[in-house]
Amino acid sequence: MDTKRIEALSDGVFAIAMTILVLEVHVPQLPRPLSPGSLGQALWHLAPSILAYGISFVILGTLWVGQHNQHHFLRRADRNLLWLNILFLSFISFLPFGTALLAKYADQPLAAAVYGGTLLCAGGLLYAQWAYATRGRRLVDANLPEAVVRGAERRILLGMGVYATAVVLSFVQPILGIALFALMPLAYVLPGAVDRHWRHDRDREA
Amino acid sequence: MDTKRIEALSDGVFAIAMTILVLEVHVPQLPRPLSPGSLGQALWHLAPSILAYGISFVILGTLWVGQHNQHHFLRRADRNLLWLNILFLSFISFLPFGTALLAKYADQPLAAAVYGGTLLCAGGLLYAQWAYATRGRRLVDANLPEAVVRGAERRILLGMGVYATAVVLSFVQPILGIALFALMPLAYVLPGAVDRHWRHDRDREA
Amino acid sequence: MDTKRIEALSDGVFAIAMTILVLEVHVPQLPRPLSPGSLGQALWHLAPSILAYGISFVILGTLWVGQHNQHHFLRRADRNLLWLNILFLSFISFLPFGTALLAKYADQPLAAAVYGGTLLCAGGLLYAQWAYATRGRRLVDANLPEAVVRGAERRILLGMGVYATAVVLSFVQPILGIALFALMPLAYVLPGAVDRHWRHDRDREA
Amino acid sequence: MDTKRIEALSDGVFAIAMTILVLEVHVPQLPRPLSPGSLGQALWHLAPSILAYGISFVILGTLWVGQHNQHHFLRRADRNLLWLNILFLSFISFLPFGTALLAKYADQPLAAAVYGGTLLCAGGLLYAQWAYATRGRRLVDANLPEAVVRGAERRILLGMGVYATAVVLSFVQPILGIALFALMPLAYVLPGAVDRHWRHDRDREA
Repeated sequence: MDTKRIEALSDGVFAIAMTILVLEVHVPQLPRPLSPGSLGQALWHLAPSILAYGISFVILGTLWVGQHNQHHFLRRADRNLLWLNILFLSFISFLPFGTALLAKYADQPLAAAVYGGTLLCAGGLLYAQWAYATRGRRLVDANLPEAVVRGAERRILLGMGVYATAVVLSFVQPILGIALFALMPLAYVLPGAVDRHWRHDRDREA
Repeated sequence: MDTKRIEALSDGVFAIAMTILVLEVHVPQLPRPLSPGSLGQALWHLAPSILAYGISFVILGTLWVGQHNQHHFLRRADRNLLWLNILFLSFISFLPFGTALLAKYADQPLAAAVYGGTLLCAGGLLYAQWAYATRGRRLVDANLPEAVVRGAERRILLGMGVYATAVVLSFVQPILGIALFALMPLAYVLPGAVDRHWRHDRDREA
Repeated sequence: MDTKRIEALSDGVFAIAMTILVLEVHVPQLPRPLSPGSLGQALWHLAPSILAYGISFVILGTLWVGQHNQHHFLRRADRNLLWLNILFLSFISFLPFGTALLAKYADQPLAAAVYGGTLLCAGGLLYAQWAYATRGRRLVDANLPEAVVRGAERRILLGMGVYATAVVLSFVQPILGIALFALMPLAYVLPGAVDRHWRHDRDREA
Repeated sequence: MDTKRIEALSDGVFAIAMTILVLEVHVPQLPRPLSPGSLGQALWHLAPSILAYGISFVILGTLWVGQHNQHHFLRRADRNLLWLNILFLSFISFLPFGTALLAKYADQPLAAAVYGGTLLCAGGLLYAQWAYATRGRRLVDANLPEAVVRGAERRILLGMGVYATAVVLSFVQPILGIALFALMPLAYVLPGAVDRHWRHDRDREA
């Protein structure tokens, strides 16, 4: 079984999930005639929705890149991988709901928990796909270096750690949890830096 | 006529149908200030919608895999196959309606009948495509073993049998029908096991 | 400029337009407790919406096949063809609105006129693309037989003739117009038969 | 990292953004029985929504063509380009909101500012992608002529100049701003003419 059509389905689901996020940003319905400044005020009240849109778009971007990177190393697919991928996509396409919930109830830890829980499930399934494909080099090249396998695992686990922390934080102070979701993409960029740092240390020791 | 663009259209329709399922899970509209626990209670009331989302996502997954497997064996396409495929897709993209109906009227056999009927039509057209393509090896490789042809047919018919049973059951007791829809993907996984079992028996006899 | 990504964009727009048609079939909102038969009655009232869904899905199918067939013969694309194609797609993706309008105001000739007008514009742009690509064999193979060029033109013009007739008929009697839209895909299948008939006649004369 | 899947994701986002624009054109809800002419009048009141749909569809077309042209010259992609592209797509998929806002508040400069601001961000990121890819010929062919690089830059900047002017104009007189958005695609076609003119001058001088 080849991986082309799995990628096509995945790209489709990601593209749609990213794009329908915007359907949850509703155009304000103001009574006519407009009083001066009322549209500006109404748009200002949309800020949480627009922010949630931006955060989710970027987080979906990181997950898409993560899945994209995995498929770069896949040589073939099997039924199990296919179903792990479909389950993964079911959480991706659930995220627009989580986003709308978080935008409307930004002050409620429960909303952050639903949002973060969706991301944790997506991350967990991304991890499971990678673990399944790489154990015994089942679906990847037999010579794939262990460092690449571990590096990708570390990256996913780090992201999941950030999501989990954000959920916990939001029970302390909701705004902190949301701030962490917003900063999460940095966690995705940082491991590269961490890797480089470690590599640098190793090189100096050698 | 080659099969690439039929696959592209199909993957697109599946990806969108899967993703817009979530538009039927509506964020609760609660009066402010929130009373303690009201959001949790409201989310709890969403359980049928979320469950219906999950069931439909996985069922769409099985149908996508089924269509995907057929196309793996197709060598070419013709106008009749194209139109069987377009009709098949029309039931796929109707499923988000059936899902929303089932979520809202889970206690009504009629809702299960609409939902199951949509799936039966989709399954029937998937069967028709396969039968059309394989009769006289019309659109598949001339050497495609009969066992593969029969195996795929059996798998589709088994799925349709489960859908039909679920509809009948829901007239007896709605919750049983829904339980069977939820378990249906197992029916999809089981044939593989059944096949292996039969093969095993055959091998022992030989 | 190659034609691959134009096809990808087109397949995407068609797949989405086909799939979001279903968003206009709304789940009935009935007061609880349900009176016996009220759900059945409510679903019965959805019949025009569901019928409009089916008609539009199949008509989009014919237009997709038409565009698909043209691209089969295209050797290259240029800026003009690209823009003809984008304008064509703008009418394709407008059709869900026309469909919802027709479903709600099936008794109003004006609704049929908007619906048919959208189809006439789409058909006209499909014709323009073909004419542009084939005049002087601008974007197709230099040896493409004139009969293929004329055959495709005839097929598009026949479809447009049916749409135009349906609009006119709907001013006489709305239900007749809708019936003709529903039968239109036959017009798409018939030309093949007509062609065969003519070819048969020609062969006998020779 | 190759550019195929970035293109697939981009084509998906563009196709969906273009198609869900139509969800903001709402079918009028008129009381029954209809008074004569009431449907016509209601459709007439939809004119701003339909116009906004058309304008946004064509503008998305220009941006898609712009991105398409850049990818024609890309030889490879890296992480930075990928993220510039994802940010670019986040503004593309935000445009349906801007469109609905502009359609509803066509008389408010603020709506035009949100709409134009979204386009300016999209244009800016398209510019950034191109600049990043071509500086030192980082991701393009080493022999790509400077004239091609500059020509593409000029085209994007011209488009952004038009968007900015439209926003400013809309604070003077909203209808003028909208007219300029509607004419913008001409600005996209004109540079080709300008280029040809300059080339012609140069040839005469030589």
